Amino acid sequence: MNKKSLVSIGKGGLLDRRSFLLSGLAITAAAPLSSLASEKNIASDLPIWMKTPGASPSEYGQPAKYENHIKRHKAPDTPQTQLFSVWHSPIENQPGIITPNGLHFTVNHNGVPNIDPAQHELKIHGLVNNPIKFSMQSLLRYPMVSPIHFLECAGNTAPNAVSLTALDQSCQELSGQVSGAQYSGVPLKYLLQEAGVTAGGKWVIAEGADGGSHARSIPLEKLMDDAFIALYQNGERLRPEQGYPMRLFVPGWEGNANVKWLHRLEVTDQPAFTKDESGLYSDILSDGKIQRFSFHMDVKSVITQPSGKMMLPEQKGFYEIAGLAWSGYGKIKMVEVSVDGGDSWVQAHLHGPVLSKALTRFSIPWQWDGKERVIMSRATDEHGRVQPTRSVWRDKYASYSFNHYNAIQAWSVSSSGRVENYYA
Amino acid sequence: MNKKSLVSIGKGGLLDRRSFLLSGLAITAAAPLSSLASEKNIASDLPIWMKTPGASPSEYGQPAKYENHIKRHKAPDTPQTQLFSVWHSPIENQPGIITPNGLHFTVNHNGVPNIDPAQHELKIHGLVNNPIKFSMQSLLRYPMVSPIHFLECAGNTAPNAVSLTALDQSCQELSGQVSGAQYSGVPLKYLLQEAGVTAGGKWVIAEGADGGSHARSIPLEKLMDDAFIALYQNGERLRPEQGYPMRLFVPGWEGNANVKWLHRLEVTDQPAFTKDESGLYSDILSDGKIQRFSFHMDVKSVITQPSGKMMLPEQKGFYEIAGLAWSGYGKIKMVEVSVDGGDSWVQAHLHGPVLSKALTRFSIPWQWDGKERVIMSRATDEHGRVQPTRSVWRDKYASYSFNHYNAIQAWSVSSSGRVENYYA
Repeated sequence: MNKKSLVSIGKGGLLDRRSFLLSGLAITAAAPLSSLASEKNIASDLPIWMKTPGASPSEYGQPAKYENHIKRHKAPDTPQTQLFSVWHSPIENQPGIITPNGLHFTVNHNGVPNIDPAQHELKIHGLVNNPIKFSMQSLLRYPMVSPIHFLECAGNTAPNAVSLTALDQSCQELSGQVSGAQYSGVPLKYLLQEAGVTAGGKWVIAEGADGGSHARSIPLEKLMDDAFIALYQNGERLRPEQGYPMRLFVPGWEGNANVKWLHRLEVTDQPAFTKDESGLYSDILSDGKIQRFSFHMDVKSVITQPSGKMMLPEQKGFYEIAGLAWSGYGKIKMVEVSVDGGDSWVQAHLHGPVLSKALTRFSIPWQWDGKERVIMSRATDEHGRVQPTRSVWRDKYASYSFNHYNAIQAWSVSSSGRVENYYA
Repeated sequence: MNKKSLVSIGKGGLLDRRSFLLSGLAITAAAPLSSLASEKNIASDLPIWMKTPGASPSEYGQPAKYENHIKRHKAPDTPQTQLFSVWHSPIENQPGIITPNGLHFTVNHNGVPNIDPAQHELKIHGLVNNPIKFSMQSLLRYPMVSPIHFLECAGNTAPNAVSLTALDQSCQELSGQVSGAQYSGVPLKYLLQEAGVTAGGKWVIAEGADGGSHARSIPLEKLMDDAFIALYQNGERLRPEQGYPMRLFVPGWEGNANVKWLHRLEVTDQPAFTKDESGLYSDILSDGKIQRFSFHMDVKSVITQPSGKMMLPEQKGFYEIAGLAWSGYGKIKMVEVSVDGGDSWVQAHLHGPVLSKALTRFSIPWQWDGKERVIMSRATDEHGRVQPTRSVWRDKYASYSFNHYNAIQAWSVSSSGRVENYYA
């Protein structure tokens, strides 16, 4: 370990990234290989896959069989039926800002419908001059946008909102109701212009074609801004769990407002107060009042490496602390990391592209001294919104309110290397 | 069709994007819906999926069954065995810059090995002070980068290079050996610094652990620049066809130089002239000389919507022309589109993010008059490199040379709406 070339920039062993780049033997995770052993190993003892022909690729590839433990998990703390279920992404295994479609989180209130796209139509009606309907084929004629965005369930990280003690959960179990993808689809403004909204139109009721007719009221202004009908996700058509053949996409807003299996948009002069917005997705404040239509997902971050339930392979030495940050209001401006429970903070490196309302990867090198540590990340967005502490967040909401939790996440690292969810 | 509000900016019906934004009834792909019919339709005649509970999501999701025709195709014009095979991405169905992992193109010279990551090691040896080896677990200790890049086979679009007549092929069949993804992995400079390259080291022989020991010589300079050991693709571990458990990634360089199933890097003072670089991947010039080590994939673009073998659903009217552009040298600066066979060109809109050595989406609105048209795209990168015409490209290379074809792609649109590969 060549400590001389490393520049410590914070308490607890956080390192300057540029000094790290210049330091040769910083990590020592590699094992020495004697020249002789090297040549011998290369010439003989070849593994079986170097001595046999390989298999044929398939028309639609699948993950390696050795990775089949990486999968969506049902939320461990939610009563589950076939109809209502919450499936979490393994975000601690995702180093970038794109979640593969097979692992994208999914929440379904009435199961996943099996919709024939040839029989599916999108209707726009209500306070419009020209009620119209679109087949799938007709929608594909319109200009499309392809932004990269995050999507997060309003209830993500709920255990930390309501549990009085920090539950020993993995990052996936605790905060896996967030994913990132490139979505492609047709801007709503084109379709609403064609329908011709009349003067009184202020809200739009978006309804899904699932058995529960999931429905949300969305301000017309948002739909004329950056909302679109998503038809594709990460370069292929939406998966059934994500709303195939089409969903509403309202960038930065809580997941369930992005109505899946969308089949109608009714322009109205007021919200409908549907079961899906008057019940589960209203927030109870600490004074007992109800906060409705809190659409935005606020600025948030989580350290994914290392995170809950992991074991650091060595009891001290070099590690990269890395994670994801996002804000429903715009771009991430800064992520700070602390390895001393919040006493001191150091700015982490943001990996590009830093996009509006999208996951943003951050990282910082860390030389762990082997002592007990509490590691945390704190994100700030371009509007100056900063993640609150857990106690500040809880002071705002009723003790049993669990939506829109965005407080600073802390993980404790024990001297044995065990990482656990922690209330700082 | 409200033609008054549309601003034509080129011959043949290309439209200004901003004027299009302001025009209400520009597209008319929607069908009218009478208010009465609307209410009736909503209240009754519900489809079966609105009257029945949905299915349960799965731990690893799959595409909708209605989309199972979207898949990789074996190259139609290549003699195929199980060991050597070329599989193309359906890029005309990909509106964004990310290709889903299951559809990423794949070329394999000796089939796909089934490698146990617990038994796999990466060795760095040769002209180094400290020969070292890395297990998968040790590699995961290092800092990672997560850039979005394209990957393209040197032989992509080979039919247009060698066939004297334009073959009637789809975009996938003709140019589907290119894909885009977010790759995550460990910069080579960290690992090479740790090995300590000696003064004479100038090249690195990268060898795969497949049955054919695919190997390429790479200049050390590239590995110290932006190359990395890719461990992840689009948020999950590499798929077997993409080199699981690890591949070399050399951004912007021909696909086969990004050695899959990488197991050793030997630092040398000269290239090895392996079978994989002295044979299939050398370019024959028109004067009979051989051009070796032509690593970069040059600036290129293709209109994917509409493209080969498609039928435009109506014989005239509004369409969006859209496609993908990329350059192995850096960012795309401009894409121009012609709908009159190259007589006039109009600048298309580039959709962000515009990233270095990554796919970039472009589009432009088009009011088709129903007459025969030849549509083309021409990309320029940030270094001023421009796609050549087909004849200029062919003048450079021998008539049977097929690698690194990057000429302007033309599609003809017949009055019936049929789109075909065309030599302009």
